[in-house]
Amino acid sequence: MKYCSECAKPLVRMIPEGDDRERYVCEYCNTVHYQNPKVVAGCILHHQGKILLCRRAIEPRSGYWSIPAGYLENGESALQGAAREALEEAHACACDLRLFGVFALPHLSQLYMVYSGELRDGYCKAGDETLEVGLFSPDTLPRQAMAFQLVEKILQDYWADHAAGRQRLYHADVISEPQAPLQLIEHEPAQY
Amino acid sequence: MKYCSECAKPLVRMIPEGDDRERYVCEYCNTVHYQNPKVVAGCILHHQGKILLCRRAIEPRSGYWSIPAGYLENGESALQGAAREALEEAHACACDLRLFGVFALPHLSQLYMVYSGELRDGYCKAGDETLEVGLFSPDTLPRQAMAFQLVEKILQDYWADHAAGRQRLYHADVISEPQAPLQLIEHEPAQY
Repeated sequence: MKYCSECAKPLVRMIPEGDDRERYVCEYCNTVHYQNPKVVAGCILHHQGKILLCRRAIEPRSGYWSIPAGYLENGESALQGAAREALEEAHACACDLRLFGVFALPHLSQLYMVYSGELRDGYCKAGDETLEVGLFSPDTLPRQAMAFQLVEKILQDYWADHAAGRQRLYHADVISEPQAPLQLIEHEPAQY
Repeated sequence: MKYCSECAKPLVRMIPEGDDRERYVCEYCNTVHYQNPKVVAGCILHHQGKILLCRRAIEPRSGYWSIPAGYLENGESALQGAAREALEEAHACACDLRLFGVFALPHLSQLYMVYSGELRDGYCKAGDETLEVGLFSPDTLPRQAMAFQLVEKILQDYWADHAAGRQRLYHADVISEPQAPLQLIEHEPAQY
């Protein structure tokens, strides 16, 4: 971010009056350009003992498998966004979606909202941002080719709950340590 | 948004190739300027049968009461953001925070994450964006001067759960109808 989107003058990095952190600020028109975390919405779609995965055609992690997910758009709810991503990435119709987990990824400034539900009629077909789609049981997951460690962990929890016949809601701050496995901090309740 | 923040040239409104909706696009440097929903994080803090409310010193709804809440910042989790807002708006220390509800407000392009917990030592004092703070029981809530209908509804649910000795998690899409009360759509499970 180099220029003001309101008046095209160069921006400076400074702490605005009454604020406590550096922002991009235009000293000509006094606009403060805030930057905020983004919401990613995704879903685990189940059909007859298998779930839908997409092999990504875009970066990051192109060529690797994950659940349908993407940035939430203005004007939609997280649930609507999760259903839209399933449709866009896999021509998949998401039914009976319920909130499965809320995962904060502060190092990426992302909030990951994961829903679970049913894949209508088991139908799926690769969308524009997908190389291929597939339905996988716990035994046939492409473990060596998963795009994100967090999604692997989420799917483990999903299948464990499915086997136990329970529906739980997950809420975790995910802290990425370079060179180390992802660390999941469950915090219900959490101490501050 | 009028000018490209990367090269200062005028932006146009168009559907980028491979996309399905209009964005702000720079035809000179080919940057697409996406706009996404923001996360608002807030908390209900309890102390000896009362909860903390802040009378807002800023718009929207300056002069009216709400729970401590504000936009999530880059680099923090929603839970951290809720605790920070309590500290900033009411010098309040949030303990034992747990996720209380996730409320999508697509008409405002916001995702509202509400936590509940304890107010340490019952201590609170107005921060810079707050006219005054107060501790309120269900009977003494300033019902005629609440800033947001959604927060009123949330607090009703909070107190009902508190009275029943239960902890539930709420998840709703909130649709605002002009001239009509807020409509809460509970969707666990939801049909798409």
